[in-house]
Amino acid sequence: MPLEKTLARIDADLDAATGRLLELMRIPSISTDPAHKPDCEAAADWLVADLESLGFDASKRATPGHPMVVAHCGGPGPHLLFYGHYDVQPVDPLDLWRRDPFDPALEATPAGTVIRGRGASDDKGPLMTFIEACRAWKAEHGRLPCRITVFLEGEEESGSPSLIPFMKENRDELSADLALICDTGLFGHDTPAIVTMLRGLVGEELTITGPDKDLHSGMYGGIAMNPARVLARILAGLHDDTGRVTVPGFYDGVPELPEEIAAQWQGLGFDAGAFLGGVGLSDPAGEADRTGLEMIWSRPTAEINGMWSGYIGAGFKTVLPSQAAAKVSFRLVGAQDPHAIRKNFRDWVRAQLPADCGVTFEAHGASPASRMATENPAFEAARQALTEEWPNPAAFVGCGGSIPIAGYFKDILGMDALLAGFARDDDALHSPNEKYDLESFHKGIRSWARMLDRICDA
Amino acid sequence: MPLEKTLARIDADLDAATGRLLELMRIPSISTDPAHKPDCEAAADWLVADLESLGFDASKRATPGHPMVVAHCGGPGPHLLFYGHYDVQPVDPLDLWRRDPFDPALEATPAGTVIRGRGASDDKGPLMTFIEACRAWKAEHGRLPCRITVFLEGEEESGSPSLIPFMKENRDELSADLALICDTGLFGHDTPAIVTMLRGLVGEELTITGPDKDLHSGMYGGIAMNPARVLARILAGLHDDTGRVTVPGFYDGVPELPEEIAAQWQGLGFDAGAFLGGVGLSDPAGEADRTGLEMIWSRPTAEINGMWSGYIGAGFKTVLPSQAAAKVSFRLVGAQDPHAIRKNFRDWVRAQLPADCGVTFEAHGASPASRMATENPAFEAARQALTEEWPNPAAFVGCGGSIPIAGYFKDILGMDALLAGFARDDDALHSPNEKYDLESFHKGIRSWARMLDRICDA
Repeated sequence: MPLEKTLARIDADLDAATGRLLELMRIPSISTDPAHKPDCEAAADWLVADLESLGFDASKRATPGHPMVVAHCGGPGPHLLFYGHYDVQPVDPLDLWRRDPFDPALEATPAGTVIRGRGASDDKGPLMTFIEACRAWKAEHGRLPCRITVFLEGEEESGSPSLIPFMKENRDELSADLALICDTGLFGHDTPAIVTMLRGLVGEELTITGPDKDLHSGMYGGIAMNPARVLARILAGLHDDTGRVTVPGFYDGVPELPEEIAAQWQGLGFDAGAFLGGVGLSDPAGEADRTGLEMIWSRPTAEINGMWSGYIGAGFKTVLPSQAAAKVSFRLVGAQDPHAIRKNFRDWVRAQLPADCGVTFEAHGASPASRMATENPAFEAARQALTEEWPNPAAFVGCGGSIPIAGYFKDILGMDALLAGFARDDDALHSPNEKYDLESFHKGIRSWARMLDRICDA
Repeated sequence: MPLEKTLARIDADLDAATGRLLELMRIPSISTDPAHKPDCEAAADWLVADLESLGFDASKRATPGHPMVVAHCGGPGPHLLFYGHYDVQPVDPLDLWRRDPFDPALEATPAGTVIRGRGASDDKGPLMTFIEACRAWKAEHGRLPCRITVFLEGEEESGSPSLIPFMKENRDELSADLALICDTGLFGHDTPAIVTMLRGLVGEELTITGPDKDLHSGMYGGIAMNPARVLARILAGLHDDTGRVTVPGFYDGVPELPEEIAAQWQGLGFDAGAFLGGVGLSDPAGEADRTGLEMIWSRPTAEINGMWSGYIGAGFKTVLPSQAAAKVSFRLVGAQDPHAIRKNFRDWVRAQLPADCGVTFEAHGASPASRMATENPAFEAARQALTEEWPNPAAFVGCGGSIPIAGYFKDILGMDALLAGFARDDDALHSPNEKYDLESFHKGIRSWARMLDRICDA
């Protein structure tokens, strides 16, 4: 049983594998912050060296932003391309971390051992589950179960500006039979999941301008237009009283959920109260007539991700600010057109401006929603492999987050993407004290070994 | 003509006086920032030494916050108390300054020479106009024209927490026949003004809390309540469509303008378009049925002075923030009760919170509006003195800003306050590139000499 020997080797090698992951996590590869550009380079170098050590033909490939890592290793059967990203989110607010986010460590907790630090769960831990599975397979059998390409980017957390040009320029090299993506989570604590629906994303930054400098609110308060007031009014109007987004045309292309999918989701027994209770909330805040899973998987959203104006330091400053700004994002579903939504949003904002205010916009990424072709037999093979590794059967689910790469693989390289991951809801990804359960890491490596075994035979 | 000799000495000593002001401005005495506490001490020490050098009995007096400076000098006639403040506003955004705010200098501009730097106009330049007038008078005549107390605080820009206790504890020492305050401006470029109406101020900081940590907007977006959305809705509702403040009871105690004052203001020929044009605006943004001068002098306001939530750095972070906060201030007029307004505002905010949000409040100062007793003959004496120094006759005017000290002098020490100042509308006080015209400084010193001469004879 070649699979059993590979799994045994994975178990025996777990401590060393964990040490390798901690080494990668110590590199503060924050892609959105220009100060961390050298760290992104260092993370790419580390991965090239590691992939070479297990027999891949690996290279760091320059882009106008952070570099890509591309690595090939031959083998029999189908050609699989694994995608991950080595960049991580910023770490602010730093004072909420209980340890240095870039000095990661194993921590014993009442719920089990966790790997704590920035990138543990998004996406350094998950991408290493795949690399470690390859390492074990190669060590045990001298070769991989099939031809594999590893493709890692360093701009996923900052809108992936170099990704599409790079994929277009390297279309032949990157085209495979199927893409594998490990940037998602388990559905429940012991229930693995394959994501077959992904929301898209449009990010917008808007800056409302008013007076040509900050003013004294005593001297000008009451007569001068305050751009913070204008911004608040615009942001307050993004949703109506039923939770629907008010931007004109926003719901164009939003499909109703097919009955069979709705029934399958009903069977998952999702408890919105428990889901929200885990983060200190209780009431679903989305569209009044939708279920909790629809709100996070199949309905589009508008969210304020950041806003700022005037004096935000300690104490008080009676300033009437000259500018007010916000970062707003829209999660898209179905056939919603990201470019139409960006245009409609901008028109909608401009139409609300008083004569004395201006606005500037900055685009931060645009990707449509994706839906996978689950009729590809690899999906059923992977579902069976995951079901064998975990206590509960695997499910096909939706995902509220945006993994635009899945759509790009389809559109640019003509291949389907299979998304499986082992993160848990309490991993605090994008937040202080991010972690990845050691069990996620260990069973994740084993899961990839099982999936490679079944997919290569499918 | 003793006055003429004093004025001539002021003219001859202008360079040295300017040098002394620049020295004081080099001390970064930002009262709202705890890091600058030693600088506030240093500014107080500098003033004690300067006042002693011209014969005052001066001392630095400790408080729980920044120290007071109190200095006495005997003389014939009435007892006048001059009030000023040596603390300054924060300097952010620093990148908008064209020079180091604490490396002040004279700059030649097309409109004349200016003294550029933080505190030039608010309030180090103005307070030195009075001290320099005393210096010239003393040098010329060997004594002051009357008994004078100088009283300087270091917490004016941070809500004056120590002021009332200090005045109560030192009631006998600080009680005089009249208070003189130099923290206001000229009405027009060549039109001096005595402020007889001052708006009050209530400052509030509110923090809306939602999820117990920052969330990934993909995983939770659409189902979790976003506190930035709640804050935007609350702030957007502060004003109705006609510009009126919507907090219940807000207009209790707001008087209509007496007809004779309305007529006098009409005569000032205030051009709202020109006033707003100076800061890049055009349309009065206050209550639709009010004149421009009413909006800034005799009507109450609500302004957003700062707001912040989520990710506000470079790039984009798809975070659903756990908190959203704002600094809001209310300018008060007539008999509006600052404590009732604070309570009504807090109740009004709480009533708008969804079940999943909380709110905390921090109070930042509360002072009622003030109205001066202009029947005191010193007011007419000062008006005549200013009319003699400047091209246009002096006027009794209102002031949109809050100088709560004027009310405290009346309530605690039982004396009227005469507010005269020489700042100009383009001085950028509280903003980057603050300046004080050299003419304001020079004619300001001369104005105080003239006012002392006439008030002491009145």
